[in-house]
Amino acid sequence: AMQDAIAELAKRTGMRISGPNAEGFYSEVQRVAATFSPTVDVKPNEPRLIATRRRIGIVAQSGGIGFAIYHRARALGIALSYVISAGNESDLGAGEFFEYMVQDSSTDVILLFIEGIRDVEKFLAAARRAAEVGKPVIVTKVGRSGAGERAAASHTASMAGWSAAYDAVFAKYGFIVSNDLDEAVTIAALLTTNPMPKGDRVAVLTVSGGAGIWGADTVAMQGLQVPELSETIQAEISKLLPSYGATRNPIDVTAQGVHSGGLQKSIDLLDVSDEVDAILVVLSLSSDTRMPFKQAELKPVLDAQNKPVVFYSYTLPSDFARKELAASGAIVLSGLTHVGVGMRQMVQRAKFTLAPPADASTLVLRDISAHLTSAKLSESDSKALLREAGIALPDEVLVTEKSALDGAIARVGFPLVMKIQSHDIPHKSEVGGVRVNIATKGEVFLAYEALLENARRHRPDAAIQGILVGPMAKKGVEIIIGTMLDKTFGPMIM
Amino acid sequence: AMQDAIAELAKRTGMRISGPNAEGFYSEVQRVAATFSPTVDVKPNEPRLIATRRRIGIVAQSGGIGFAIYHRARALGIALSYVISAGNESDLGAGEFFEYMVQDSSTDVILLFIEGIRDVEKFLAAARRAAEVGKPVIVTKVGRSGAGERAAASHTASMAGWSAAYDAVFAKYGFIVSNDLDEAVTIAALLTTNPMPKGDRVAVLTVSGGAGIWGADTVAMQGLQVPELSETIQAEISKLLPSYGATRNPIDVTAQGVHSGGLQKSIDLLDVSDEVDAILVVLSLSSDTRMPFKQAELKPVLDAQNKPVVFYSYTLPSDFARKELAASGAIVLSGLTHVGVGMRQMVQRAKFTLAPPADASTLVLRDISAHLTSAKLSESDSKALLREAGIALPDEVLVTEKSALDGAIARVGFPLVMKIQSHDIPHKSEVGGVRVNIATKGEVFLAYEALLENARRHRPDAAIQGILVGPMAKKGVEIIIGTMLDKTFGPMIM
Repeated sequence: AMQDAIAELAKRTGMRISGPNAEGFYSEVQRVAATFSPTVDVKPNEPRLIATRRRIGIVAQSGGIGFAIYHRARALGIALSYVISAGNESDLGAGEFFEYMVQDSSTDVILLFIEGIRDVEKFLAAARRAAEVGKPVIVTKVGRSGAGERAAASHTASMAGWSAAYDAVFAKYGFIVSNDLDEAVTIAALLTTNPMPKGDRVAVLTVSGGAGIWGADTVAMQGLQVPELSETIQAEISKLLPSYGATRNPIDVTAQGVHSGGLQKSIDLLDVSDEVDAILVVLSLSSDTRMPFKQAELKPVLDAQNKPVVFYSYTLPSDFARKELAASGAIVLSGLTHVGVGMRQMVQRAKFTLAPPADASTLVLRDISAHLTSAKLSESDSKALLREAGIALPDEVLVTEKSALDGAIARVGFPLVMKIQSHDIPHKSEVGGVRVNIATKGEVFLAYEALLENARRHRPDAAIQGILVGPMAKKGVEIIIGTMLDKTFGPMIM
Repeated sequence: AMQDAIAELAKRTGMRISGPNAEGFYSEVQRVAATFSPTVDVKPNEPRLIATRRRIGIVAQSGGIGFAIYHRARALGIALSYVISAGNESDLGAGEFFEYMVQDSSTDVILLFIEGIRDVEKFLAAARRAAEVGKPVIVTKVGRSGAGERAAASHTASMAGWSAAYDAVFAKYGFIVSNDLDEAVTIAALLTTNPMPKGDRVAVLTVSGGAGIWGADTVAMQGLQVPELSETIQAEISKLLPSYGATRNPIDVTAQGVHSGGLQKSIDLLDVSDEVDAILVVLSLSSDTRMPFKQAELKPVLDAQNKPVVFYSYTLPSDFARKELAASGAIVLSGLTHVGVGMRQMVQRAKFTLAPPADASTLVLRDISAHLTSAKLSESDSKALLREAGIALPDEVLVTEKSALDGAIARVGFPLVMKIQSHDIPHKSEVGGVRVNIATKGEVFLAYEALLENARRHRPDAAIQGILVGPMAKKGVEIIIGTMLDKTFGPMIM
């Protein structure tokens, strides 16, 4: 009731409202904290870490999660435009906030947390626009399980809807779907510090053999390639390493390779090589005092933005390491599976192209209501309706008397199929109402009698339309295409 | 060469050696740091956080990873017995270290990082012993991808081997396999703070609606149940909540529920309820000053060890929160998918039972070498060999002259199958050498002639043994069972 009064106020005055049941919004661009979330508290002597060259914007229907995404992104050094929590959406909805982020020049990558979209038209328009301008969208959709759906309904009064419908929409517009908070933030970290990869070949560069193997396994399990390097580049790299290093890929520069400069020089070489499309650097960045890179050497390579260079630390990274690498424009990541997923998602996103909108001139809306003659339609009537709607179907003949069989055979040809037609017999096979693979005229006449006789015997009261005669389908893959009216997105093919 | 000299020294003197190419070992029990890993450095004013009632022991073939596991486990407050890195295993191998951990009373949960096992007998004996005494083992096996295998071979000179063989051995002994560092440590955290769950029903308890939905989705996606609670317990819980809370499961006590005591009292209720087997508490623990629990209230519940109570923070947990909850015996986890996987792994591990060893009295080793008459065996000869080895097969007759067909029919019965037999015709169908579903005596005699004629025509030089007559198999699921000699583990069925 209070919420209705708020919505009414918004309508009457033109004042726009975010919430209720939200945590407000936060802007790092305009330096506005209109939120009670403690995650935006500024701590003395802790300057904001910024490692990225681009900014994320966050739209969340749950304030708790929206600011949790921000909290984790900030810890990694990801720059932010806005966090907006939508809550119960009495006025402004997630779709409209999303729309704002898409056109906002201070937002480069958008993270969405969705329970259920209400302003669907705005959401879809923004999704198309984001795809058109190439602004990446990372989306988490919850309410996928029975329990989650139950909770979404009572939480922000969202209809969680059919998850597959959401996923179809996300796929159509090239959204990156992530169901894990750290994974989503990892993907955001990759997108805000790196160019898109031109292919799926990854060089794994490490200072520890075991960790390098793990890194190679992880990206390979995501379907990315870890190709053996050419003799030429291996020879170049081996000059930089002690004898017990490895050059084939994974490349193990060993602990010695850090001090000798082999690590940095290997990055330099791989960054300009056309043998790999991305570099995964696997190392230990737990030290509070030592750093394996010099800003003067690393920053120029990362600034060139030739290909993604991703930094993973198998020990927990120190604040010192985060700050040092941030100065070169790099984020230290600490979840290897998330890194693998993120690199795969980047490769897939780089290949995404938006399908052109359907040509409206071919989509004439035809009135097919005249075909809806009964609550149940026979196969013959259903097919007439589908033909009217513009769907191609095999040429078939509905035969209502024996004398018409010769004409039907001439039109359809052998082998053919014959099926009883009646609104009252939806399951034809159950009454012996189907004959397949008929190859002779004699069989056709026998089948005609048998089908009518079977129908009379099993369903004496059924109104018989006739016998449908059609060509026998060749062997192949059967595909069932269904349609449904999704509560959120409307008509969908499934 | 140096390594051989070291191994020789070990043999000559009886001195045992760990490594080379390792990072030594570390014992928190005896307070010995025989390692150069910087992860064991003690920092002033940072007392070691201990949240667990049990200790983990770590055996890693890579020192870097072994101490990285320790580094992450320590940050969560997991107590440790030993970290041991095995490296190139010139003397002591991972199997022997593992064996030590299994019998060591200060080690409750074992984490293994394996590139490739060399001391296989010791490893298998220890694995069986661990299963017998119920000591959980979490294992990471790398070298699963082509690139990883390539690297493992050059790193610690391990044969990474066939991953499926390793996984079969791990499954046999109830090991928990994890391919992610944080996931493995999360599972270790769950096992060292909680009892094993008695079933798969999870209560998700939250202070934030959106996060609770996400929590419910995550455990449900792992195949665990998030059942709607009974009216009775919902009525109890609803007394503790404001009107906009939720009680069905997920249970949303709301931010108000923290101050009112609803959060703690809900845990109390659920902990003794027989409606759920585990509790997942989803909340924000980022504050440096506020804590939603009182040790005097929480610790007794956790000490009772009735069922797993798991704490996940969607914001990054503060050091303050970690310390406060550690005092009650709880670890704050921050990776939701890892938590879901960990809870599922606990449920599965709780159900594990070790298969009894095969009864040696039924496993007489028979000499079947007399059957190995040719490099390629005909179907008939292969089956004779398998029968000799004790494998049951259908009753069949090898017919070498027409006059024997009547006897074969009498023994086999209709319908039957006839197949040409020759060492020189491994692919019988290709030469028209098989007839199936024969139902009359006349067909049998015709088929006999036809099969011999086909063989003569397609393979004029083939030495024909005769025609195999056997019963026609009924329709069913065909299963192919293969055997192989794995380089690491020996004979395996696949």
